[in-house]
Amino acid sequence: MAGVIPVSFTGGEIGEWRVVTMDAIRGEPLPPVSNLAVHPRHVSLSPPASWVLHGTKNHVRYTERQEQVTLDAKQEGLGRPSATCAALIPIRKSEAWWGMTQEERRAIFEEQSGHIAKSIAYLPAIARRLYHCRDLGEPFDFLTWFEYAPEHGEAFDALVATLRTSREWDFVEAEVDIRLVLS
Amino acid sequence: MAGVIPVSFTGGEIGEWRVVTMDAIRGEPLPPVSNLAVHPRHVSLSPPASWVLHGTKNHVRYTERQEQVTLDAKQEGLGRPSATCAALIPIRKSEAWWGMTQEERRAIFEEQSGHIAKSIAYLPAIARRLYHCRDLGEPFDFLTWFEYAPEHGEAFDALVATLRTSREWDFVEAEVDIRLVLS
Repeated sequence: MAGVIPVSFTGGEIGEWRVVTMDAIRGEPLPPVSNLAVHPRHVSLSPPASWVLHGTKNHVRYTERQEQVTLDAKQEGLGRPSATCAALIPIRKSEAWWGMTQEERRAIFEEQSGHIAKSIAYLPAIARRLYHCRDLGEPFDFLTWFEYAPEHGEAFDALVATLRTSREWDFVEAEVDIRLVLS
Repeated sequence: MAGVIPVSFTGGEIGEWRVVTMDAIRGEPLPPVSNLAVHPRHVSLSPPASWVLHGTKNHVRYTERQEQVTLDAKQEGLGRPSATCAALIPIRKSEAWWGMTQEERRAIFEEQSGHIAKSIAYLPAIARRLYHCRDLGEPFDFLTWFEYAPEHGEAFDALVATLRTSREWDFVEAEVDIRLVLS
C-alpha cells in the first residue's frame, strides 16, 4: 500500500475516457470537455488539453489496520475489463477541516461519517483510488477516482449520495462530479 | 495552523544563509554548497544554484489537540532577530514506515518515541517549521527547518541527538544535517 503513484488527468478533446456528465456539486465548475486522459506522471498543461489536475497516490491518512485488512480482502484493482465506467471527483475541503488536528478529523471522517464503513459495502463492485494534491498547490485537495461496470452505476450513485449527506461533507467546499465511459 | 505555505530551498553560491556544515547522517549526501536561499514558492532549478528542494507547510499529521494547545502556547515564530542560526534537515523515511496505517505511525512517533513531548522541552528557544514533500515526488519526505540563537546551539544538538536515538529513527533511511548562519 506504500507505493507512490503520480497522476495527471487532462481534460480536452482527446483521451481514452469519454465524458458523459460534468456537474459542479459545490464550488466552481471545471471547463466542459469531451474527453479525459489519465497520465501516470505529472505533466504540464499543453494543447489540445484545456485543463490538467495533478495528484499523488500515497500512504493512507485515516485508515486503521483492521479497516485496511478488510479493504485489502474485499477490494479489487483498477483496470478490470468489465469496469467500463469511471468517475473522477475532485474535492476541496475547507480551512475549518484542515485546521483540525488528526484525531479530530478522523473522528468526523469515520466515527461520525462512516466513510470507510459505508464504502466497504460497495466492494468489490466499485474500485477506487485516492490521489492527494493539497501539498502540490493544486485547486483541489483530492482527486478521487472510481471504476465500475455499467450494472453498478446505481450502486455508485447510492454510495456518492450517502457520503454527501454525512457530517464529513459539511467541510467540502468544492466538488466536481465527472462521469466517464471508456471510448 | 491551516495555512498552506510552499517553500524552495536552493543550495549554491548565493543565499542569505551561509553553510557551516553539511553532514549526511544516513543515506546519500547533497552536493556541497556555500550558501542556502529560501524562497516562499516552488521555483525551478536554475544557475547559480546547484540543487533545489521543494516542500509545503500544511496541516498537522500526528499532533493531537492537547499537544497543539501546548505547542501554540510555548512556541515562537520564524524570523526572530536573535535567531541567527538555522538548520535544514531533509529526511526520508522507509517504505516500512509508509506502509503502516495512521495509528501505527502515531504510536511509534509519539507514544514510543516522544517526538512532540521531547520537542516541547526545547520551546521557545528552538523555532521549527515542517515542510512536507513526499506527495511532490521529491527525494526527501520532509524538509525540517529550525531557527535559534547562537547560545542555543548546544540545546539544538541535544534535541537532534535524542530524536536520533528514538524508535522513530529506525525508519529514517536518509537524513542530511545542514547547519547555517545568517550571512
